[in-house]
Amino acid sequence: MARQERGIRTRREVLEAAAEVFAERGYAAATISEILSRAGVTKGALYFHFASKEELLRGVLEEQFTEKDIVPRESKLQEWVDVGMALAHRLPREPLLRAGARLMSDPKLQELFGRGPQVSWVGLTHRLLAQAGERGELLPHVVPGETAQFVVNAWNGVQLGSQIAADWTDLEKQVSVLFRHVLPAVAVPGVLLRIDTAPDRGERVVAEVERLPAPA
Amino acid sequence: MARQERGIRTRREVLEAAAEVFAERGYAAATISEILSRAGVTKGALYFHFASKEELLRGVLEEQFTEKDIVPRESKLQEWVDVGMALAHRLPREPLLRAGARLMSDPKLQELFGRGPQVSWVGLTHRLLAQAGERGELLPHVVPGETAQFVVNAWNGVQLGSQIAADWTDLEKQVSVLFRHVLPAVAVPGVLLRIDTAPDRGERVVAEVERLPAPA
Repeated sequence: MARQERGIRTRREVLEAAAEVFAERGYAAATISEILSRAGVTKGALYFHFASKEELLRGVLEEQFTEKDIVPRESKLQEWVDVGMALAHRLPREPLLRAGARLMSDPKLQELFGRGPQVSWVGLTHRLLAQAGERGELLPHVVPGETAQFVVNAWNGVQLGSQIAADWTDLEKQVSVLFRHVLPAVAVPGVLLRIDTAPDRGERVVAEVERLPAPA
Repeated sequence: MARQERGIRTRREVLEAAAEVFAERGYAAATISEILSRAGVTKGALYFHFASKEELLRGVLEEQFTEKDIVPRESKLQEWVDVGMALAHRLPREPLLRAGARLMSDPKLQELFGRGPQVSWVGLTHRLLAQAGERGELLPHVVPGETAQFVVNAWNGVQLGSQIAADWTDLEKQVSVLFRHVLPAVAVPGVLLRIDTAPDRGERVVAEVERLPAPA
């Protein structure tokens, strides 16, 4: 068990170092040896987890989006908002997400990101919106797949704007603004009234996730 | 007059060539001599308009946003929508805008873009939204500067998503989706009802602008 935890921590440290080196040098110019010295792990430890630079990149991209911030709620629209707000809280604080977001400036990686983690994110939010529809939370004309895709794209644009203007210090506020602008087009009035889009919503969701018992 | 028109056309050709070379090679690696041979103009003609590579870059960035697509309307919210829809129509069709949007993938240029043309775009849309507010078109809680900034960021995110997924072939549809999602949070019902956000709105606005008499 202790060995397994150490393995998870090492994997995370290697991914953080890889993400930072990729973001600073560009993916093409980055070398495994620089990632090794940044992570402070042995060559054997790195290759135990990742066979190549490509696998490191795939690992970094996969970490950019996680389903762990979903806490079951009575309102599926609230779950949908929570995923976006929790990510806005995590991104400025987690080195792997910060470096990952900077990496997205590389057009070739944008493409990989667009076809990988972003597709997962659209898929998850599409499912949540479809469930919201089944429960009668959506206005009748809403097309869940369209709304899911639009909000993921808008979230990315808001992230980029916040990165350029404020080094992400206002990201939670800006993502809150996003949901306040979109929900009236999506939610029936009785649900709209009860959805929490406050800028500190993400912080509270992340705290809640961290108090949950770890999966067995 | 003929000479002046020729000068305007040459300037445009040089900017298109510069934008394309910057987008293909990256700004740092681009050379004036490659821009010259791409544009098919003389060195003298290029330097008559632009003294340096930096001035070429500034010229390309300035062309990314124009106020010429504003046609006065009874509804200022419609003018605001028209600016975003017309740009969505132009971008896939105008080499200078296509290359400019691809250029934005360079993080250093993103910064310049964020502080230059994007600030102008937010400024213009902020003014239009403030005018809409004075005319009673906005819901009482709307903060024009906040909405203007959010929609410019969201527009950029939608542009990037459409570029990656569809080489911009669905950009007009996606920007139409954007405005349909945002207007209910912004417009009073009586105005909302009359705003045209159809995907072909931008095409019609651009056609209208091109029929207008040229400024004296």
